[in-house]
Amino acid sequence: MSGAGFGFTLIKEDSRTGARAGVIHTPHGDIPTPMFAPVGTQATVKTMTPHELKELGAKIILANTYHLYLRPGADIIEKLGGLHHFMCWDGPILTDSGGFQIFSLQDLRTFREDGVVFRSHIDGSQHFFSPEKAVQIQEQLGADIIMCLDECAPPMDYEYNRQALERTHRWAVRCKEAHTRSDQALFGIVQGGVFPDLRVHSAEFMVSLDFPGYAIGGLSVGEPKEDMHAILELLNGLLPKHKPRYLMGVGSPEDFFECAARGVDLFDCVLPTRLARNAALLTHEGRLNIRNAPYADDPRPIEEGCECYTCRHFSRAYLRHLFKAGEILGLRLATIHNLHFALNLMGRIRQSILDGTFADFKAQFLRQYKTTDYAVREANRLRRLESLRARSTRGG
Amino acid sequence: MSGAGFGFTLIKEDSRTGARAGVIHTPHGDIPTPMFAPVGTQATVKTMTPHELKELGAKIILANTYHLYLRPGADIIEKLGGLHHFMCWDGPILTDSGGFQIFSLQDLRTFREDGVVFRSHIDGSQHFFSPEKAVQIQEQLGADIIMCLDECAPPMDYEYNRQALERTHRWAVRCKEAHTRSDQALFGIVQGGVFPDLRVHSAEFMVSLDFPGYAIGGLSVGEPKEDMHAILELLNGLLPKHKPRYLMGVGSPEDFFECAARGVDLFDCVLPTRLARNAALLTHEGRLNIRNAPYADDPRPIEEGCECYTCRHFSRAYLRHLFKAGEILGLRLATIHNLHFALNLMGRIRQSILDGTFADFKAQFLRQYKTTDYAVREANRLRRLESLRARSTRGG
Repeated sequence: MSGAGFGFTLIKEDSRTGARAGVIHTPHGDIPTPMFAPVGTQATVKTMTPHELKELGAKIILANTYHLYLRPGADIIEKLGGLHHFMCWDGPILTDSGGFQIFSLQDLRTFREDGVVFRSHIDGSQHFFSPEKAVQIQEQLGADIIMCLDECAPPMDYEYNRQALERTHRWAVRCKEAHTRSDQALFGIVQGGVFPDLRVHSAEFMVSLDFPGYAIGGLSVGEPKEDMHAILELLNGLLPKHKPRYLMGVGSPEDFFECAARGVDLFDCVLPTRLARNAALLTHEGRLNIRNAPYADDPRPIEEGCECYTCRHFSRAYLRHLFKAGEILGLRLATIHNLHFALNLMGRIRQSILDGTFADFKAQFLRQYKTTDYAVREANRLRRLESLRARSTRGG
Repeated sequence: MSGAGFGFTLIKEDSRTGARAGVIHTPHGDIPTPMFAPVGTQATVKTMTPHELKELGAKIILANTYHLYLRPGADIIEKLGGLHHFMCWDGPILTDSGGFQIFSLQDLRTFREDGVVFRSHIDGSQHFFSPEKAVQIQEQLGADIIMCLDECAPPMDYEYNRQALERTHRWAVRCKEAHTRSDQALFGIVQGGVFPDLRVHSAEFMVSLDFPGYAIGGLSVGEPKEDMHAILELLNGLLPKHKPRYLMGVGSPEDFFECAARGVDLFDCVLPTRLARNAALLTHEGRLNIRNAPYADDPRPIEEGCECYTCRHFSRAYLRHLFKAGEILGLRLATIHNLHFALNLMGRIRQSILDGTFADFKAQFLRQYKTTDYAVREANRLRRLESLRARSTRGG
């Protein structure tokens, strides 16, 4: 099924970079691109109401099939009228296939030709996802854009990637055959780690299946940023111009620029919301940790000139107090600010592409923005994986 | 100081009960009474923005002097422009004196003639509140209505109450003398446990000091409800008609009716917000625990006909999912519902007093509403005290 009511209009290609401005059409509304999708893992973008997300300018949100399948269960969401109705979000929704979360479970899962056997990180119970099952669950959830089941191999392991890729390709064929809902667009996922030959092979194979859009998986999972950029440049020349490209699990503010410059239309990432809950607030100069002592009596907003609800009403001193006191309002206000920052930045990126000033805007932003160290990022990533694994083991 | 810009207009006295409808005037706006004040212990009503509180119909909120003195500190709040500006709430605010929280610290505090020495429940550091200091801190915080420092003795211990009362009276004189801000109304607190002679003595003494309003302390702290009702009936005849009466730390929906019927104008209580965060949702039939299994696929709102944001948009099934998944949005949506329930109920109580139908409304509500068992309430109260004490001890 190719996705009735789904389409992509390419409006403008940047002359100096690979950046594109366009619109993804879905049965639940249009998504101007490039766009960032806030992540609502468990059918809620953490701390936010759907109405707040709309006010913040979110045009599409992501939900995780793995998590929703385990809790509350796809049957319940289907019975309650599907994900849109269940969580009261009437805009576009994208669900992943669950493949990435299951792969991250490490010792708790086994990938086989017919699918993947895994244990729940919640209670240790055993489950099985086949490509057909992953599609069926996503049909029950009812998102506008859904994903094929894939295996996201470690990015630097050639042999692992080569084998996983072949299986992912066979699964993509099965997912496409299993897909029955004409109001959903099923995307194929290009894998292949940091290896150009595998990425070329994967892109060509997925394009041959003629999906309505293509996801790029297996990036920003531990490889150096330069490798990610090189792969995106490669894919930019291989993926069809008139189909949307969705870069999974990316990104940071600097990623928005670097990846949009390499032809990416859609991003999703927990980063802005997760950072917010960890007191790390996004500004044009980099991250600001609101727990730090100098903010204790600082009457200024997080960032001067920011038009988000938080910055229009509250001081750094108040936010710091909320975080120090463990108050939920702190998590909310920080989330509002970071989502505003990400969505507003993406809107300005899009406008600069339309105006032909993207390259200048990119250079100017990146000059001012202090990015987080690679080593810090990688340590954080590994810590999160470890914590997920520890939870899973306890669950079992 | 008597509180410039402060006043009370008695609009209507119910002919069949002691209920009254009125308006408390403050420099930050009018408060129609009877009214319920949501509690914002740490300068935030847990999970809510000030704008949401306003939408919910909150006309006054309470903040805790003890907590704000310890964190972030009264100096910081004063420097940031006072509590209203600090937390971005431009309506009336009431602060307690800290006496009740300090009394609850039990082993960590010593009441003396000059004041009370106590240890912080956060870090075990030692502090001292005199009546003058309690007033000075509340002047720094800048609430519209502030309280004298008092000692809230165990309600059934006559000798303890007798001695604590005399000291509380001497402290009230000192608080009144220490109070300098003319834009704040300082209330005296009537104590005396469940003992009519002590309550009469305390009411007469406080009235002789001619405060702009009177708080009633030491009720709903472990004594049977009948005792609370008897004391309120007694005080209703003793406190001046044309001054507002504020019943501290009460109440439940049934308390609203029973205590308004005995002349109470203002209530505050953490109950609606705390219950919400514990998945206990208020309905006209009693509490509903949204974690319970039958709600897993229940498409209905918490309560049919409820006009709160939560009930207009979300199902019991979604709320249960949020609670089971540990999502913050669940705490928010439950808090919205419970605050709406409490504030809306109080609004209807007020209207029924104006309409002369209060007694009927009370009988009708109490017939339908299943109250929580006294033993359960008391066990919960003791568990909370125990948990506070455990935290304090760890802090030390």
